[in-house]
Amino acid sequence: MRLSRLHAPTLREVPSDAEVVSHQLMLRAGMIRRVAAGVYSYLPLGLRVIRKIENIIREEMNRAGAQELLLPAVQPAELWKESGRWEEYGKELLRFTDRNDREFCIGPTHEEVITALVRDEIRSYRQLPVNLYQIQTKFRDEIRPRFGLMRGREFIMKDAYSFDADQEGANRSYEAMREAYSRIFTRCGLDFRAVEADTGAIGGRFSHEFMVLADTGEDVVVSCSQCDYAANLEKAEIQGTEEDSVEAPEAAPRPLEKVSTPGMKTVEQVTNFLGITPDRLVKTLIYQVDDSPVAVLVRGDHDANEVKIRNSLDAAQVELADPKVTERVTGAPVGFAGPVGLKIPVIADTAVARMSDCVVGANETDFHWTGADPERDFHVTRYLDLRNARQGDLCPRCGGELQFHRGIEVGHVFKLGTKYSKSMGGVFLDADGAEKLMIMGCYGIGVGRTAAAAIEQNHDEGGIIWPVPIAPFHVYLLPIHPKDTEVVQASENLYRDLTALGIETLLDDRDERPGVKFKDADLTGVPIRVTVGPKNLKAGVLEVRFRKTGDTELVPVSETAALISDRLSEALKV
Amino acid sequence: MRLSRLHAPTLREVPSDAEVVSHQLMLRAGMIRRVAAGVYSYLPLGLRVIRKIENIIREEMNRAGAQELLLPAVQPAELWKESGRWEEYGKELLRFTDRNDREFCIGPTHEEVITALVRDEIRSYRQLPVNLYQIQTKFRDEIRPRFGLMRGREFIMKDAYSFDADQEGANRSYEAMREAYSRIFTRCGLDFRAVEADTGAIGGRFSHEFMVLADTGEDVVVSCSQCDYAANLEKAEIQGTEEDSVEAPEAAPRPLEKVSTPGMKTVEQVTNFLGITPDRLVKTLIYQVDDSPVAVLVRGDHDANEVKIRNSLDAAQVELADPKVTERVTGAPVGFAGPVGLKIPVIADTAVARMSDCVVGANETDFHWTGADPERDFHVTRYLDLRNARQGDLCPRCGGELQFHRGIEVGHVFKLGTKYSKSMGGVFLDADGAEKLMIMGCYGIGVGRTAAAAIEQNHDEGGIIWPVPIAPFHVYLLPIHPKDTEVVQASENLYRDLTALGIETLLDDRDERPGVKFKDADLTGVPIRVTVGPKNLKAGVLEVRFRKTGDTELVPVSETAALISDRLSEALKV
Repeated sequence: MRLSRLHAPTLREVPSDAEVVSHQLMLRAGMIRRVAAGVYSYLPLGLRVIRKIENIIREEMNRAGAQELLLPAVQPAELWKESGRWEEYGKELLRFTDRNDREFCIGPTHEEVITALVRDEIRSYRQLPVNLYQIQTKFRDEIRPRFGLMRGREFIMKDAYSFDADQEGANRSYEAMREAYSRIFTRCGLDFRAVEADTGAIGGRFSHEFMVLADTGEDVVVSCSQCDYAANLEKAEIQGTEEDSVEAPEAAPRPLEKVSTPGMKTVEQVTNFLGITPDRLVKTLIYQVDDSPVAVLVRGDHDANEVKIRNSLDAAQVELADPKVTERVTGAPVGFAGPVGLKIPVIADTAVARMSDCVVGANETDFHWTGADPERDFHVTRYLDLRNARQGDLCPRCGGELQFHRGIEVGHVFKLGTKYSKSMGGVFLDADGAEKLMIMGCYGIGVGRTAAAAIEQNHDEGGIIWPVPIAPFHVYLLPIHPKDTEVVQASENLYRDLTALGIETLLDDRDERPGVKFKDADLTGVPIRVTVGPKNLKAGVLEVRFRKTGDTELVPVSETAALISDRLSEALKV
Repeated sequence: MRLSRLHAPTLREVPSDAEVVSHQLMLRAGMIRRVAAGVYSYLPLGLRVIRKIENIIREEMNRAGAQELLLPAVQPAELWKESGRWEEYGKELLRFTDRNDREFCIGPTHEEVITALVRDEIRSYRQLPVNLYQIQTKFRDEIRPRFGLMRGREFIMKDAYSFDADQEGANRSYEAMREAYSRIFTRCGLDFRAVEADTGAIGGRFSHEFMVLADTGEDVVVSCSQCDYAANLEKAEIQGTEEDSVEAPEAAPRPLEKVSTPGMKTVEQVTNFLGITPDRLVKTLIYQVDDSPVAVLVRGDHDANEVKIRNSLDAAQVELADPKVTERVTGAPVGFAGPVGLKIPVIADTAVARMSDCVVGANETDFHWTGADPERDFHVTRYLDLRNARQGDLCPRCGGELQFHRGIEVGHVFKLGTKYSKSMGGVFLDADGAEKLMIMGCYGIGVGRTAAAAIEQNHDEGGIIWPVPIAPFHVYLLPIHPKDTEVVQASENLYRDLTALGIETLLDDRDERPGVKFKDADLTGVPIRVTVGPKNLKAGVLEVRFRKTGDTELVPVSETAALISDRLSEALKV
């Protein structure tokens, strides 16, 4: 492709409305343009990246036995009413009525449509399993769309849905997708982790998120330095937190003593005031668990994990109690709650069981207890793993050290179980003649988000550094003087040779200064740049530069195409 | 692909809600399923056809220098208000508000979005011309969606938009698209005509529709038997209709005579009653032309053409007048209008000028005039080409005979001129430093409709007969006895060999009776069927059958793959 004929308007300035680097670089490199909040056009360069990611996904989904179809964007409300989500889904579901006042939505996801399709077509266990996927444009009316393709309202997604006759089959389908996803993100050239994730309200015991590692990621990835355990922060377990492993503290007890802590409410204030470290204080947090208040104790330097609290108590909903509730159940305002004498259930993180001589709130304005001992001074219903893991905690699998990274979620594999087959009548006749519910799984990949995450992970001050498999072009061919006939001729020859080898080459044939071209080459992040200049040409060589390493080589003109072809084959090897 | 793993549920019964054959066969062959009125899911087999058509389109658009991008489905109302179409478009534009009460629509077409994109990026004549296209899902809230993919509400379309600096450039862009479209439909293996079409209210002088010929088509294609002139019925001109070619009638005149025609209102009633042929009667039709009534005269056996009337009078809107208006201006109810003594402007089709001794309405209930002569008895303002062409009329270009076909519109190329660049500020700086409006063209292809039209053109009682280039698979490999090891082995071998040759093969590995398999093979319309049966195998041959001709050949097992490869290469030659 000749750049003079490619609509890829680059920008030198960082657009003011773009907060994250991928959004900035996609705008600056002429890959996307904003049409409305969270709604973008993909310009030719951006679309090429999207299509490459789509094709890798498609190949690996097909290899895993999934079949591609295409479901509609516009969906009738009836299906969502059957599943119950018409009421449940909230404002992200964009609802509208058509000219005949029939209710519809623009699909943010397709469990309803696919379940309706499969229930109408599949009658027998012999037709199962089936895994159907699509690559399709969806719409979620996000309350705060931002970060370009990272959190758009209209976005391209690969979504797959598996249907199995039994739990074992569902597990196999799930594992096949988990493996396919690993191949997909590996083939995209990304550094990622498949992390265990909470299954949330949908239920099911399995869920993995695929996280592209990037310092700018919004999510925290916890992974073991020794084994392949990895989880998101919500889910990450901590070794030695089972109740039976708790041992009694060994230090000699001190008596309980009430001390004045005027206006000292936060961990920092209280510990500074008393001259102790935060690991000597017990935080008492009052949570509203479904309809009842529950006190949760964690060490002062630990963070309570609401997902672990919810799962431990098998609750539907967990949230910090309203300050008024806290005042009612503790008798003191927020900041002075403590477990001594508390009349509501008290659960505690296991780390609390190992404490003694600690500080707790006194349930009285401006007072705390010191010298408190969990066994002696208050009653804990259960000790459980209730806190967020921290760097240096031990791996629940192997005891190795847990490491922290930041990551961007680009994919999710999920066991749905019978949630939709139950509500929508997705049944089949099993071999024994009994009617049973199909067991479902769903598997998503954000295509645009994967492109954005690739940039978050791979960029420098000059611009994007595309992994070869998803780069919009392989080679940026840069004639320094577009009016020097020898330069032009050598460039055209190489362009022809590279194209003949199937190498996607962008020829910068614009009448621009070399500085502009070099800047655009870096900005667009094409993996290999070939500079054709009169001086090197006289010496019979061309300068080949690799965007990722910055390494340059002077290569004899006649060997350039072959060298590039070799390097690319290596990088594109499946 | 193994059929046992392909979700392609075939139906024996003709679905009751499917009126046209393509809709019936797409449902029966398991290509599509209905989700709501005019909204369909594409099952794997259907999607394969769609993708093949898309790829042919993509290759030819790229070859013609157009660049692919992807615009959003959801579009902000502001852009449509700028162009004025937010008010004009009518109920087919599906409007909605988002969670913040901002107005949006689901794009039925993308002139607004593309014009906004280009005006913001392109400043100079040096950046022109540019032709940008996308293949995208659109939504039009049709009042009566029907015929499956032929007239859906959600549909896949290729739309392209060209921007040029001057009229000559715009003409070149238009011609490049016209040629690309011809290559596209040729490569799809379709029998089609590019017909001249009216440009309608949008203006511009050029417009061509691409019509796939099929007896079941809704449109009429008028084409010359000798030259390449072709037009749709609205637009088709008739030779010798210019005003100056009209000659005075030669027959001797008869006197005007008022005759009673009680209750005789239609051409048929009046001519039967008077015992004359319809070409002796002049129909007088009262039209509302913008705000005034105009009488239009055509011969009794001719049909008035409203588009010709509108264009001849340079009117914005033309429609048959309300019966009350007719009564007011003629003094008689509909059925008795006539030009004699009429006080409103009268225009007539040129064929009327050649009439004499004819019958016209008397503007009096239950009376007609006989013996009327256009020159003597009434005043015609202008004689013009105002009627529909008929089989046997003469070609306006070469005088050859006009032929009639039925067709299905699958593509449209259109000169937009400056309609959108004017309303939305699509300007550029020309070489002379002056700010000018970009000149636009737009070019659409209905992708799903092309698939449906291919079926309308290519089917028989057994099912679909796919043209090779857009067939979902090339070969249907049919082992008669899936439990006979030799049959299975020979089938697997051929499956492997064909697949290795890149031939898309569907192996019917289902445990079904041969009759079911043969029926499904015909229904799905795969171009080549290979039957593997024990008897032929013993003789060392396989039966190769061509779906289109029904011809069968017995081919030695070892030569089958090569023979198929040869035949397909021929059919797929670009």
